[in-house]
Amino acid sequence: MAKTDHVPLPAVRRLSLYLRQLEVLHAGDHQTVSSKQLGAALGISDAQIRKDLAYFGQFGHPGIGYRVPELILRVRRILGTDKTSNVLLVGAGNLGRALFSFRGFSKKGFEIVAIFDNNPEKVGRVLDGPTKVTIQPTAEMDATVRDHAIRLGILAVPGPVAQAVADEMVSAGIRALLNFAPVTLQVGKEVAVSSVDLAVHLEQLSFQLGCVSG
Amino acid sequence: MAKTDHVPLPAVRRLSLYLRQLEVLHAGDHQTVSSKQLGAALGISDAQIRKDLAYFGQFGHPGIGYRVPELILRVRRILGTDKTSNVLLVGAGNLGRALFSFRGFSKKGFEIVAIFDNNPEKVGRVLDGPTKVTIQPTAEMDATVRDHAIRLGILAVPGPVAQAVADEMVSAGIRALLNFAPVTLQVGKEVAVSSVDLAVHLEQLSFQLGCVSG
Repeated sequence: MAKTDHVPLPAVRRLSLYLRQLEVLHAGDHQTVSSKQLGAALGISDAQIRKDLAYFGQFGHPGIGYRVPELILRVRRILGTDKTSNVLLVGAGNLGRALFSFRGFSKKGFEIVAIFDNNPEKVGRVLDGPTKVTIQPTAEMDATVRDHAIRLGILAVPGPVAQAVADEMVSAGIRALLNFAPVTLQVGKEVAVSSVDLAVHLEQLSFQLGCVSG
Repeated sequence: MAKTDHVPLPAVRRLSLYLRQLEVLHAGDHQTVSSKQLGAALGISDAQIRKDLAYFGQFGHPGIGYRVPELILRVRRILGTDKTSNVLLVGAGNLGRALFSFRGFSKKGFEIVAIFDNNPEKVGRVLDGPTKVTIQPTAEMDATVRDHAIRLGILAVPGPVAQAVADEMVSAGIRALLNFAPVTLQVGKEVAVSSVDLAVHLEQLSFQLGCVSG
């Protein structure tokens, strides 16, 4: 596959949605699907779907549409989720523990293999999720990242310490950060960051409520 | 304030980021800030900030910039978070419980006042978060939504049941949904939906990792 750093991120996000819907179809034993059918299920136009997929190659078959199992494999390969990725998690508070026990990650090929937290009451405790993982102090991060070839990290620590922890993660070798802390992280261009800002989501909805009721 | 249903959602999302940074400045006792300073802290251009704020009125003072406490109040009013909103949560699994104990919501004016789950082992249990809330069966949702004037709901149930639960919430009167289930919800135009799709975030990062290392 050609490396495709010119693809707009919204197209990549939609690729995830296509994959999810394809997996639903596959579970229902559907062998083929048209861009029209796929779009109807997702509220996305078929032209948009064809355009998004065209960034990555030729996928349809004339008179057939897309072959579901084939397109699943190819989209997974594009996203890099055709193989399992080791992931680390920093922050073993409520949110961190919920994320660890969330089965959706491992279903998608992401395995949380290490958990860090510097709270002395938490270090050494074993968390039981999809696997059992012992909470480590962040001083051990460098070695763990190296030993498990980890490049993806989840940050679930309070806002005031988030930047310092992110710096530690990057210096240990993490190159992609899923950030749950309510701060704008400053990282170098070699690091990809995706932020899940829960309060911002609620504020958006609150604003929209004002509009629909106004 | 003029109701502003023509404002693009990305501008509203940035408004949340401006508010957060303003709150940081306020906590640090800064009384004024320029769009340039605000932008530098967030990695957003000052022109973008001025454009976003211009949707809502005139906020700057010549020769001074923005007055921090004043802008905080006005942005909160725009977002509808100058007063507390009652919120309900459906799904008392790992994620639902973590969301309930997340203090970030109540800091932003969102109070989870009711929790629903139809698992008989969970109904009647009391969860201890920012407040104590007893888990109720969804059959009681209509009455609770009415009694507490709830319009905002958080959906933290497994994918396969999410659409049915969302339908119940909308029929009970919920008009804004924060969805954590990995599905594309179908709702009417009178309902705002914001989805937090954790696996999609990881897939995006995985794709970007492929680009930076490729």
